[in-house]
Amino acid sequence: RTLRIGLIPGDGIGREVIPAGRRILEALPSSLNLNFSFVNLDAGFETFQKTGTALPDKTVETLKKECDGALFGAVSSPSTKVAGYSSPIVALRKKLDLYANVRPVKTTAGSSNGKPIDLVIVRENTEDLYVKEERTEEGPNGKVAEAIKRISERASHRISTIAGEIALRRQGIRAAAPGTSSHSQPMVTITHKSNVLSQTDGLFRETARKALAAEKFSSIHVEEQIVDSMVYKLFRQPEYYDVIVAPNLYGDILSDGAAALVGSLGLVPSANVGDGFAIGEPCHGSAPDIEGKGIANPIATLRSVALMLEFLGEPNAAAKIYTAVDANLDEAKFLSPDMGGKATTQEVLDDVLKRL
Amino acid sequence: RTLRIGLIPGDGIGREVIPAGRRILEALPSSLNLNFSFVNLDAGFETFQKTGTALPDKTVETLKKECDGALFGAVSSPSTKVAGYSSPIVALRKKLDLYANVRPVKTTAGSSNGKPIDLVIVRENTEDLYVKEERTEEGPNGKVAEAIKRISERASHRISTIAGEIALRRQGIRAAAPGTSSHSQPMVTITHKSNVLSQTDGLFRETARKALAAEKFSSIHVEEQIVDSMVYKLFRQPEYYDVIVAPNLYGDILSDGAAALVGSLGLVPSANVGDGFAIGEPCHGSAPDIEGKGIANPIATLRSVALMLEFLGEPNAAAKIYTAVDANLDEAKFLSPDMGGKATTQEVLDDVLKRL
Ligand SMILES: CC(C)[C@H](C(=O)O)[C@@H](O)C(=O)O
Ligand SMILES: CC(C)[C@H](C(=O)O)[C@@H](O)C(=O)O
Repeated sequence: RTLRIGLIPGDGIGREVIPAGRRILEALPSSLNLNFSFVNLDAGFETFQKTGTALPDKTVETLKKECDGALFGAVSSPSTKVAGYSSPIVALRKKLDLYANVRPVKTTAGSSNGKPIDLVIVRENTEDLYVKEERTEEGPNGKVAEAIKRISERASHRISTIAGEIALRRQGIRAAAPGTSSHSQPMVTITHKSNVLSQTDGLFRETARKALAAEKFSSIHVEEQIVDSMVYKLFRQPEYYDVIVAPNLYGDILSDGAAALVGSLGLVPSANVGDGFAIGEPCHGSAPDIEGKGIANPIATLRSVALMLEFLGEPNAAAKIYTAVDANLDEAKFLSPDMGGKATTQEVLDDVLKRL
Repeated sequence: RTLRIGLIPGDGIGREVIPAGRRILEALPSSLNLNFSFVNLDAGFETFQKTGTALPDKTVETLKKECDGALFGAVSSPSTKVAGYSSPIVALRKKLDLYANVRPVKTTAGSSNGKPIDLVIVRENTEDLYVKEERTEEGPNGKVAEAIKRISERASHRISTIAGEIALRRQGIRAAAPGTSSHSQPMVTITHKSNVLSQTDGLFRETARKALAAEKFSSIHVEEQIVDSMVYKLFRQPEYYDVIVAPNLYGDILSDGAAALVGSLGLVPSANVGDGFAIGEPCHGSAPDIEGKGIANPIATLRSVALMLEFLGEPNAAAKIYTAVDANLDEAKFLSPDMGGKATTQEVLDDVLKRL
């Protein structure tokens, strides 16, 4: 099987980590019978400055017509408002209907100095406040701006369903490798704020409950947590959680919170997943402070590559990458500066490749 | 001076901690020349079940006409949707125009096993998604619900101004007691998500920048943090932060997150502050799991009493309470179960009273 992968480095350290993602795909053992071809695609703030658009049509068209999956690096946010600029990743998620943003957060044996964490945040990726429908009026007391938070039954249902499927798949992997996880039963925690937003978050909650009550999910333990308590609990007992499903904005916030628990955003991958398409995306941003120094942590990208492969139906290739990355972290000899080490992006990558 | 204080225990452990709040006011040394009178007021889910309204007009009227301040306990959220029920505290904040929700989070010498944390979250308390303007439509693919997130220049300006004032006041207290804090300069961090919500959160950010650029705030160092990064940073380097100002929902989430850092929600106070009025409110909820057992931690309430007194212009009385509470925590002899101790609500209270 040959997979064609779009490479969208974007801005900042995106350009330093996406090449590492390409390298690991090229280095996968030939026994897997997987080949890759690549196409470089533009997006980001620099693209905006050059062309007037942060997400050229050509990028979207090429992804739709030619590609099986993609890797997205990062984009810089301008520090003051720039007219006409808006985040290309948010637009891309919507244009390709990548409705699930999947963010696993996991400690490895060596990296964990506390309790072992092994959870995944499944974030709705197309609606909520991210519909970006805003308006501003000039009132008697100054400006008043409004934004729409939209929650639909359809989007809530499909995100909850994929959360349930992920919970079952994780349970399958755990069953195959006993002792690697503290979870004995698949669990999904529904996050919302329906005590205040009874209609929108109420609809999310109710729909998630219904979706997860399906026969095929009968082995899953379903709980709920109001978003503010969820953040509290996430920090007090992260080892308790398995799959957390949340509307877009809460998912965004929770995944950064969970990243803090494993030590560095530089470790946390994500995949933007639609029907038959997935974009791997490290959770860190463009990191202007370390841009160009060659010291960005490639781990989040390597794990994002693996996550993309999982959703493209290649779990064995994904497992190879996860194992190599975990071994690098557990040995802790080649760690980048965000992890307290001194290794460059290239050195971390080489160490992982060696273990493939 | 005599202050008349409304007591609104609400539901659950609210009824166990609010009496402790009353007791500490009555026990303040007479040298302070402060007297208190009290009026008991209804609100909450039980009130709703009895009367059909969670916030009786009489409660609002009495607070407005007779009271200088109030203490609010907690309200239970029904676990499934109950038609017509909506949170009385959200309504109360709006009806009394208590526009600032002030939530200090602080480690004491003894309680901190990591870095000393000394920050305060100043949360806008009247708008954002809490305007609760929602509607639901039946579409071709099922229900679609929408909620309005409203951000006004006026509310953003006044919350940023009070955040600046609090930063200056904290700096004054630090200057009077050198060595008690790691902060050398007042700092305000503006939290928003203007990279996605350019109009609403953009307006909050821009207005906060302007408000904090006022001459009187020239000694304050002003920074910004996108809300997801803010949660990440809050967990990675909480000791760095001084005052964090945020729109309503982010403030709600951030304050639970910050509470997790100091070990228990049972320690974290808040005050709902308007012009000339303040309601002290512990950040914990009604805690149905421990209700009626007499083991609720009264510290959050005692600190909320102190915070209320600060905003009613009685910093000396407030300081007495803070000092007594800190001494209880540092000695760590009478701690409630949430803190790993065995003391009852009454025993913790008695220990604090003894130190007044
Ligand atoms: C850059 C930003 C628009 C984006 C988001 O909010 O989704 C980022 O925070 C993320 O989590 O991928
Ligand atoms: C109970 C709930 C409505 C409330 C809020 O969201 O404001 C609570 O979480 C709080 O922080 O006081």
